[in-house]
Order: sequence, then C-alpha cells, then structure tokens
Amino acid sequence: MRRTAAALIIGNEILSGKIADTNTTYLARGLFELGIELRRVVVCPDEIDTISRELSELRTSHDLVFTSGGVGPTHDDVTIEGVAASFERPVVQSEGVAKMIRHYYGERTNDAHLRMANMPEGGEMIRSSDAPWPTVVIENVFVLPGVPEIFELKFNDLRRRLDQGQEFHSRAVFTLSGEGEIASLLERIAKAFPGVMVGSYVKWKAEDYRTKVTFDGNDREAVEKAADMLIGELAPDLFVRRE
Amino acid sequence: MRRTAAALIIGNEILSGKIADTNTTYLARGLFELGIELRRVVVCPDEIDTISRELSELRTSHDLVFTSGGVGPTHDDVTIEGVAASFERPVVQSEGVAKMIRHYYGERTNDAHLRMANMPEGGEMIRSSDAPWPTVVIENVFVLPGVPEIFELKFNDLRRRLDQGQEFHSRAVFTLSGEGEIASLLERIAKAFPGVMVGSYVKWKAEDYRTKVTFDGNDREAVEKAADMLIGELAPDLFVRRE
Repeated sequence: MRRTAAALIIGNEILSGKIADTNTTYLARGLFELGIELRRVVVCPDEIDTISRELSELRTSHDLVFTSGGVGPTHDDVTIEGVAASFERPVVQSEGVAKMIRHYYGERTNDAHLRMANMPEGGEMIRSSDAPWPTVVIENVFVLPGVPEIFELKFNDLRRRLDQGQEFHSRAVFTLSGEGEIASLLERIAKAFPGVMVGSYVKWKAEDYRTKVTFDGNDREAVEKAADMLIGELAPDLFVRRE
Repeated sequence: MRRTAAALIIGNEILSGKIADTNTTYLARGLFELGIELRRVVVCPDEIDTISRELSELRTSHDLVFTSGGVGPTHDDVTIEGVAASFERPVVQSEGVAKMIRHYYGERTNDAHLRMANMPEGGEMIRSSDAPWPTVVIENVFVLPGVPEIFELKFNDLRRRLDQGQEFHSRAVFTLSGEGEIASLLERIAKAFPGVMVGSYVKWKAEDYRTKVTFDGNDREAVEKAADMLIGELAPDLFVRRE
C-alpha cells in the first residue's frame, strides 16, 4: 500500500503574501521521490484552535503529517501549543533542548528563547547530524520550522527514516500537439494503465514543445508502456522527445 | 467588517512537486492589498468528490472563495464538475463561450475543447478586457485557471469588482535584535494595538538587519503608533530603518 501524507503550513505571513511558501514544493518533491502520496495541503493562520482543529483532521486521515512554521520564540509562534491541543496533551519542556539553548545564548537566555524547547508531552526530539536544533515528532506528526533552509535540512534527515524503497518511476513525453487534440488519447491511456498517473502541462511561453505529458507510478514497466502507447499513437511529426 | 476569503488550489502536479504553485502568493498579496483576509488555503488532487467536499466547506465559511487549476480540456480537468457537485447543480454549456471556442479552433474543434465552455448551472461567465477567455463565477466562488499568466490576468480584472476601499496599511521596522530578545516587547505591542497584526521575520542569510517586524491593519494611525512604540523601546543602536 502506498503511504499517504498531508502538510499543514502555518503562518499569517503566507496568507498575507509577505512570504512565498517554498516548503510545500520541496516537501512534495521529496515525498514523491519516496513514493509517498501527498494528498492534501492546508495553509492556516497562527491560531492555536485553528492549528489544533486542522491537525486533528489531517493526522487521523493520513499516514504522515508534516507541519511547517510557527516554532520560533515570538508570541505568534503557537504551533507547539496547537499540536499539543490536537493530541489533548500538555506542553512540556525538553530538558535536553533547554540545556542546548542555555549553552547557546548563555546569560542572554530568556523565556522567549526557552519556548523553543517546548513540545507536547510524549513527543520525541529527534537529533540530526546537519540541523542545528532537534525536530519534534509526535506519533505520525513531524513539526518542522518555516525557515526554508532549516526546513530542508530537517526534511533531508527525515528521508532516511521514511524511505521504504517505494519510489515512483516517471517518464515525460514532449509533443507539439495542443492539449485538446490529445485529450481523448490521454484518457484512453489512463484507462489502459490504471496504476499510472497521467498528467499534461501546456507550455504557455514559446518552447520547442507545446504539451508535456507525464507518466508516474510505482510499476516501472507500466510507466514505460504508457509512454510507448502515447508515442505510438501520436502523429510522428508531433513527437518532440521522451525523457 | 473585514471580508474573509479562502483558496482551493487544485492539481496533482502541485501535490507531486512537478509544478510550484505561485498563484497562492499572487492571490494572497492581491487580497491583502484589498483589505480582504485570506484565512485558509487548501491544495487538493484532481478528484470531483474531493473538490466538491473541500469547496462546500470553504464557501460556506468564507465570504469569497477562489479556485485555481483543473479547467483545461483533458480528462484530469474536473474542477467544473467538482464545483457543480458542491452546489448540487448540473454542468451546462455556455453558448457564448462555445461559440468563441468554435471560432478560435475552427474545424479542429472537438469535445475536449468544448469542455472549456462548461459551467455549473446558474453560473455566470464574466468577460474581461485582458484575458482571452471568460471566468466562471457562481455565487461567492471564482473559478480561475492554474496557468499563472492567465490566473494573474483574470485576478487583476476581478480586483475592480472586489475593491471596497478597505485596504490594509503596512509598516516595517528593521532591527539588529534577535527575535527572542524582542519577543516580549512585541507581545506588549500586539496587546496595546489589538487591530494591528504584528509579525516578525528572521533573516537567516546575512543582511544589514537580523529581524524585520511588520505592522498591518486597516487603521493607518494605529499601525504608525505600533511601529513608533517598537522604535521608542528599542535600544537605539539596534534600530536599522523604518519602511
């Protein structure tokens, strides 16, 4: 069975357009490479009740959930409180992380800094080789920071943990045909290969092709055959290349 | 009362990381400028039932909903069917748009092309000056295409319709202080000016500042005063600039 995942992207700055979220795309690509199906992404504001409600829905309907954002030291960083509320557990301080923070900030350490040692009771702090701070994990929920550089470092660490050798295989066929002209052919291919996801993308700006058709699935042979079927039925002068 | 909005971003290509969604950020900025509060964004796959279920939730809990994607001619473009299902209405063909499509494609016109003339019964096709095709609107739901160039053209047309002169005012203060050092000050400012949203963003890579603090709200004077309070209480050598 293919594992499913969801993401909860937390932050007023994304909903007001101040910051463009790049973590969703990074996560989506990473999960795709691991053969994990990202089914749903929700972006919500920094509000404890909202985070709790959204997370409760996502974590009970998907195998894995990744949150992004809201784990810094300021008043609007309430993700840990929201996650704890979803699990109906109190927020506790990780002694190990509090020690790391005191070591790092020395005499300047204050309550705001120490908020970053908080986690829901029963959570786990995963240490990693590359990232400066540990990652909070509780059951099937991974709590990641919003800063893209750190999000990416931490996700890359988690990859090893999540890899079960179920990667997707992908092929792409580039054609000069418009999308409308091959729509019924693509539908037939999708029906002939039910385990293969068939996607088509129109290039709006000029390129050497007009439509890119993608084939993805866990079964490499079925993916190749689906691509073969398209090329076989396409008028030869409309075929550009296969990747 | 501030109007609220939600977005439903539809497309397997975004959930598999093949395409980075830029429409959310564009929409978020545009709504912010209009003083409309974007409260929730959901990304979902190209599935009629899923689109219908997500949309039903979003459109009954927000003043305005914008969808992006899934309106092309291929088998996986099922947004119109999903929107119609959410409103429990049949899909009908707009005669005006079908005529435009026949005019454009001439003899090559096929059923796939004509799918782009579909809309839920009772919907409206809004013609615009700049965009090549009209936009489907039904009650409080605006159905926009996923291709960013066209999404942006169409949204810009809608701006005039949506503008009610409730824009947000914004100020930013750049400081050399770390986020943790000013966390309690920011909390006091947020409490002193309840109508002002206070945000803080750490610059990870080297810049001339460490933390950017933003103040946003409909009341220009309150926004200015909140920024003044931060600058007044900040140690002078930590202040970089105000924008």
